[in-house]
Amino acid sequence: MTVDLLIAGFGVVGQGLAEVLASKQGELESKLDTEVRIVGAFDSRSMVRSEYGLDPIELLQHKKATGMVGEERHQGDTVSIVREVDHDILIELTPTDIVKGEPAFSHMRSSLEMGRDVITCNKGPLALRYRELSSLARRKGARLRFEGSVGGAMPVISVAREVLMGERILKIRGILNGTCNFILSRMGEEGLPLSQALKEAQQLGYAEADPTYDIDGIDSACKVAILANAIMDKDVTVNEVEITGIRGISEEAVALASSQRKVIRLIGEISERRVEVSPRLVPAGHLLSIGGTLNMVQMKTDIAGEITVAGKGAGKMETASAVFSDLVALVRSR
Amino acid sequence: MTVDLLIAGFGVVGQGLAEVLASKQGELESKLDTEVRIVGAFDSRSMVRSEYGLDPIELLQHKKATGMVGEERHQGDTVSIVREVDHDILIELTPTDIVKGEPAFSHMRSSLEMGRDVITCNKGPLALRYRELSSLARRKGARLRFEGSVGGAMPVISVAREVLMGERILKIRGILNGTCNFILSRMGEEGLPLSQALKEAQQLGYAEADPTYDIDGIDSACKVAILANAIMDKDVTVNEVEITGIRGISEEAVALASSQRKVIRLIGEISERRVEVSPRLVPAGHLLSIGGTLNMVQMKTDIAGEITVAGKGAGKMETASAVFSDLVALVRSR
Repeated sequence: MTVDLLIAGFGVVGQGLAEVLASKQGELESKLDTEVRIVGAFDSRSMVRSEYGLDPIELLQHKKATGMVGEERHQGDTVSIVREVDHDILIELTPTDIVKGEPAFSHMRSSLEMGRDVITCNKGPLALRYRELSSLARRKGARLRFEGSVGGAMPVISVAREVLMGERILKIRGILNGTCNFILSRMGEEGLPLSQALKEAQQLGYAEADPTYDIDGIDSACKVAILANAIMDKDVTVNEVEITGIRGISEEAVALASSQRKVIRLIGEISERRVEVSPRLVPAGHLLSIGGTLNMVQMKTDIAGEITVAGKGAGKMETASAVFSDLVALVRSR
Repeated sequence: MTVDLLIAGFGVVGQGLAEVLASKQGELESKLDTEVRIVGAFDSRSMVRSEYGLDPIELLQHKKATGMVGEERHQGDTVSIVREVDHDILIELTPTDIVKGEPAFSHMRSSLEMGRDVITCNKGPLALRYRELSSLARRKGARLRFEGSVGGAMPVISVAREVLMGERILKIRGILNGTCNFILSRMGEEGLPLSQALKEAQQLGYAEADPTYDIDGIDSACKVAILANAIMDKDVTVNEVEITGIRGISEEAVALASSQRKVIRLIGEISERRVEVSPRLVPAGHLLSIGGTLNMVQMKTDIAGEITVAGKGAGKMETASAVFSDLVALVRSR
């Protein structure tokens, strides 16, 4: 069998995926008896296509040499590319926009409308217009997978939707942003003020120059919205998540928590009554007191009790691995 | 569609499964469009069958009232029951025997030989004769699932074999016995000697009157053997696992570890070079330093990095939930 991929977006994660494909194509062929081909790829300025399949290594080299994935420049109408390049699976990896979710939403809609499967790690369309996408997919008999959109390599969505399919998930709590968790754990360990822990996070590459998206809890809230929709069958957007970030956390608050053998962690929670992100006191020794940049989700289920999943929440190869796991799942069930 | 179950063994887990089936049969029918029927069940003395399906609640009531699952007494030739009761899936839940793996092994072999699927939580046959069973299943086109055999509700086998199917798993480390972990964490928290922490575990029902199987590391070693075979494609039995239990851990050793901000944990490890169970020093704050009765497994993979899964390692409903998740997986993919 042959499965044809169209890759939308060739930034960090797209390049990571190309590396994974280069090293695992042979294994996929032997294990799943399927030839996975890249029949097209585009980034913000250029595109490349071949119905016979593109070499992922050549795409990486071209991108590195020229800043563009392909020779051919396009005029920005990337939705037309999605419509014109015949593909089985769209892999949507363009930059996240959490105001409109574009152009990712339109790319995904175009593929789903043609009954094509879609894999994405793009939080925007999922945190804003999940129901539209999932019901379109259902109507067209297409599949929509997005493991990489929540917590990088941490396989929470597959675990919840596939492994725990027989369970009812009653409540989800988790650490969904490694940057905040790093900052809070450094504040606790060293008694640093937030500003200094943030600076450290920036120096180590864990935080952006503009840290708003992370420390005001918006990134966590996007993930909460996605989990609420995908796992707990809610119908919410990121705009309906109650958000308190960590900007107001003082050294004194952290020290007070510590004197009670507790730590402060930014926790996303989804339950019958709540869809929220807020700093919480967590007892030392509880799994959610973990320090560092890991992401961790705990799911309370009706029979199995509490199931915990943790993994690296960000990073090129970690996110690419989640995209690849979705690809393997789609190929397997074809 | 209809799926017919034969339940071998109606002890704690069998009864837990009957409770789950009683509450989830309707959901399975509507979600997966499949009627799941119990067409037979037996325990060490009795049996009951009906090709039209047995009511799980009635089985539970009969067992409670009489100590037997069915009216009809059998003479111990339970393998004949497996051969004679026509079924799609054998659910093998008889008591674990880690010397010979019987009668579970013979039950499972009989079903697999007829091309029937098998679900079990019985460590014996898997820790002793895994390759025979898995290759028989492959030859006959049958499926063998055993999530409940390792760590109760913790879904490590499904995560490794299905969710992480695209990854190479390079190393596994984990806490695989809640009893030992409880004892070691009480020794650390309270400075108790092992004998007293063990007594506490026995009073709370976490440890058996004869604790050998747990504290000498044999239970952990069975799970290590199963994970080594099922996830890392080794060919080992429990007898080949290098085992050091916790019997020799002194209060002084625990205190010394604590003075270095470390704890002692009984860790199972599988890597290219090692298949072993032994007490290890774990830094405070590391996930594997967790206290209490949880089970936890960390898998080091080639792309995703380290993925951690944790859940309740024992208990009637926790183990029944794992058996049920295997059932859902089999029904789904029929």
